[in-house]
Amino acid sequence: MNVASQGEKRLRSVEPIRWTAEGVVMLDQRRLPGEVVYHTYTDYREVAKAIKDMVIRGAPAIGVAAGMGVALGVERSNAQTLPELRAELATICDTLARTRPTAVDLFWAIERFKKRFEELAAPAKDGAAGLAGLRASMVTEAQELHQERREADERIGKFGAELLPRTGRVMTQCNAGALATGGIGTALGVIRKAVEAGQRIDVLVPETRPYLQGARLTAWELHQDQIPLTLITDNMVGHFLKTGGVSAVFVGADRIARNGDTANKIGTYGIAVLARENNVPFYVAAPISTLDLSISSGEEIPIEERSEEEVTHLGGMRISPDVRAAHPAFDVTPARFIAAIITERGVARAPYEKNLQNLVEKT
Amino acid sequence: MNVASQGEKRLRSVEPIRWTAEGVVMLDQRRLPGEVVYHTYTDYREVAKAIKDMVIRGAPAIGVAAGMGVALGVERSNAQTLPELRAELATICDTLARTRPTAVDLFWAIERFKKRFEELAAPAKDGAAGLAGLRASMVTEAQELHQERREADERIGKFGAELLPRTGRVMTQCNAGALATGGIGTALGVIRKAVEAGQRIDVLVPETRPYLQGARLTAWELHQDQIPLTLITDNMVGHFLKTGGVSAVFVGADRIARNGDTANKIGTYGIAVLARENNVPFYVAAPISTLDLSISSGEEIPIEERSEEEVTHLGGMRISPDVRAAHPAFDVTPARFIAAIITERGVARAPYEKNLQNLVEKT
Repeated sequence: MNVASQGEKRLRSVEPIRWTAEGVVMLDQRRLPGEVVYHTYTDYREVAKAIKDMVIRGAPAIGVAAGMGVALGVERSNAQTLPELRAELATICDTLARTRPTAVDLFWAIERFKKRFEELAAPAKDGAAGLAGLRASMVTEAQELHQERREADERIGKFGAELLPRTGRVMTQCNAGALATGGIGTALGVIRKAVEAGQRIDVLVPETRPYLQGARLTAWELHQDQIPLTLITDNMVGHFLKTGGVSAVFVGADRIARNGDTANKIGTYGIAVLARENNVPFYVAAPISTLDLSISSGEEIPIEERSEEEVTHLGGMRISPDVRAAHPAFDVTPARFIAAIITERGVARAPYEKNLQNLVEKT
Repeated sequence: MNVASQGEKRLRSVEPIRWTAEGVVMLDQRRLPGEVVYHTYTDYREVAKAIKDMVIRGAPAIGVAAGMGVALGVERSNAQTLPELRAELATICDTLARTRPTAVDLFWAIERFKKRFEELAAPAKDGAAGLAGLRASMVTEAQELHQERREADERIGKFGAELLPRTGRVMTQCNAGALATGGIGTALGVIRKAVEAGQRIDVLVPETRPYLQGARLTAWELHQDQIPLTLITDNMVGHFLKTGGVSAVFVGADRIARNGDTANKIGTYGIAVLARENNVPFYVAAPISTLDLSISSGEEIPIEERSEEEVTHLGGMRISPDVRAAHPAFDVTPARFIAAIITERGVARAPYEKNLQNLVEKT
C-alpha cells in the first residue's frame, strides 16, 4: 500500500496515531496545517515507511508508532508456529529499526516488544490458541505503551509547569507537542498544564526549518488550544532571547545520554547557547524512554542526515540555485547548557549522571 | 510607474544598480535566482519605492541607490530657479529617507548629496546654465559614489583576505556580496579576494529567512563565481560552528555604532555568540559609510520591523496557520563578540571607540 489516500478516520483533536481494528491510523503531519489527512496502515512495512517519511515524527510518538508497527506485524503474520512467528518478529523489528537513527524511543520500543514477546512465548503457548493469545497480547502492549505516553506527558507537564512563572513567555523549538508524543506533548505539555493551572503563558515559536515543524505543527496546536503565540524565524531566536522578555525555554528531546547531553531537532544547541548567554533557563522535557544510559555522552549519538532537497526546496518549489546543501536533522546540546531535565518521574538537575540514574531506578 | 515590467537592460554579472542615460537601472533581487529581471526607474519616487520594497538591499547598495535617487530627482526636476530646486531637493531627500530605517548608508548618502548640492549652489550658479551644471554635477556625484563603493570593496576584500588561512571554511550571513554593495561585496569581497589570491576557501551559507538572501543571493553569487559553498538552514549555524571546521565568520553591516556594536541582518547576533562559544573569530566587513559615530552604542540603532506576512508566507504560499508573527529585520551584535571590523581604511580591533575614530580621521 502506498502512503497516499487511505481511508480517513477522525482522531481526537491533535492525536497523531491510534490503534484501531482496521489497522494503525496516522495523521499525516507532512500536510498540516493546510490539510488534515489520515492514513490507515494494515502492514508493518507501511508503518516503517511512515516513520521514515515523517508522516509521524517526534521521539515519543515514533516509539508508539514502532510499538504499534510490531503489534501490527505480529497480529497479521501468517506464521503457524512459534519459531515462525519469532523469525517474523525479528524481520519486523529490523525493518522498523532501519527507519530513523537518532530518536532512541524507537529502539527502546522495539526492545520492549522483543522482550515482551519472549516473556509471553513460554513453550506452553505454542499451538494455535497460544499464538492467538500472544498476538492479542502484543496488541494490548502497544495500546498500553500509548497510554503510558499519555500519562507520562501529564506528569512531565505538571513538573514543568511548576518551573514557569504566573505570567511569562516561553520559547520552544520544533514540535514537542501532542503530535510528537500521542499525549499532550512534552514541552507543549508543560505549557498546556501551566495554562490549565491559570498561568498566563505566551509562546515564541521558531519556525524550525527546513521541515517547519514550528510554523506548521506547534503553531497549529497552540492556535487550536487558543494559547497565544508569536511565530518567528529561526534566526530571530537570539534577538528575542536578548530583548523579548523570555522566562524560559522548553524543548523536547530525541535522545539523552548518561551525562545529560541531549540530541534534539537541529537548532536546539544554538537556542541553548543563546539562552545561557542571556540568563534564560533552558529546560528539556522528555519521558524516561528518551534516556539512553548505554552511552556516556552526546558524542555517541548518531545524527541523522536527511536529503539536501528538503533544504533547497520548500513545498516543491526550489528556493536556491542548484547548489550543495547540508541537512543534519538534529544537533547535540551539551549538558552544561541545560538547567534541568523534566521527566515523568521528576526533575533532574546537574550532576546528570547521578541524578538521571536515580530517576531511572525510581519506581 | 509601477515596479513591474520595465525595460530590461543587461548589467555586468551580479551588478545590482547602474546609472544610465535612460534612468537608474536595477536588478530585481526579489526575483533571483529564478528570474533575472531589470527595471529602469525614471522618477526618484520609483527609486524610493524600490529601496522600500527591497528590489535593491544591502546597506552600501542602498546608499548608492539613494545617491542615484537624489541625482535622478534633481536632474529631472522642473524647477526653474535655485530656490525651487533646493525645495525639491528637500522633498526628494525626505522621500528617500523614509524608506528603510536601519542601514545608515542611506542617511549618509542623503547628507552627502545635500552638502554637495550646497557646495555647488553658489549664488553665481543661479540661472539656466548654473542649474544645468548643478544637475550634471549631482549625476557625476552619484557615479562617483558608486565608483568609491567599488574601490572600498576591493580594499576591504584585501584586508579581510589576510585574516583567512590558506585553506579554510568561512561562514557568512545574508548577502554581503556584489548585490549588496555595487562592487565585489564586503564579506563576499573578502572571500573573492582570498580566492583570487589562491587561498582555498569554501563557504557555509545560512539561507537567511525570511527573505532568503543567503539561499537566493549569496548562493547565486558564489555559484556564478564557482566558489564552493554549502547551503544550510539558519538553525544549523550552531551545529556547524561546533563541528564543521569553520575558520572564520565574515558578515556585512547595516550600521556600526561608535563603540563597535553592529546592526546587521537578523540572525547575525546569534551567529556571533555561537562563534565565540566555539572559538571561531567573527569579523564584520563594512565601508566607513556604515559607521555611525553619532550614536554611542547599538541600543540607539532603530531596528526595522517588516511585515508579518514575510514570515508566515513563502513565495506567496502560506506556511503556517493564521497566527501572529514577528519580523525584526535586523539585530544588534555587541562589540565584545566582534574580533575585528574591516573597512577600506584598515582593520579596527577593540577598543573600538578609539580605533574606529582613528580610521575615520585617517585620510
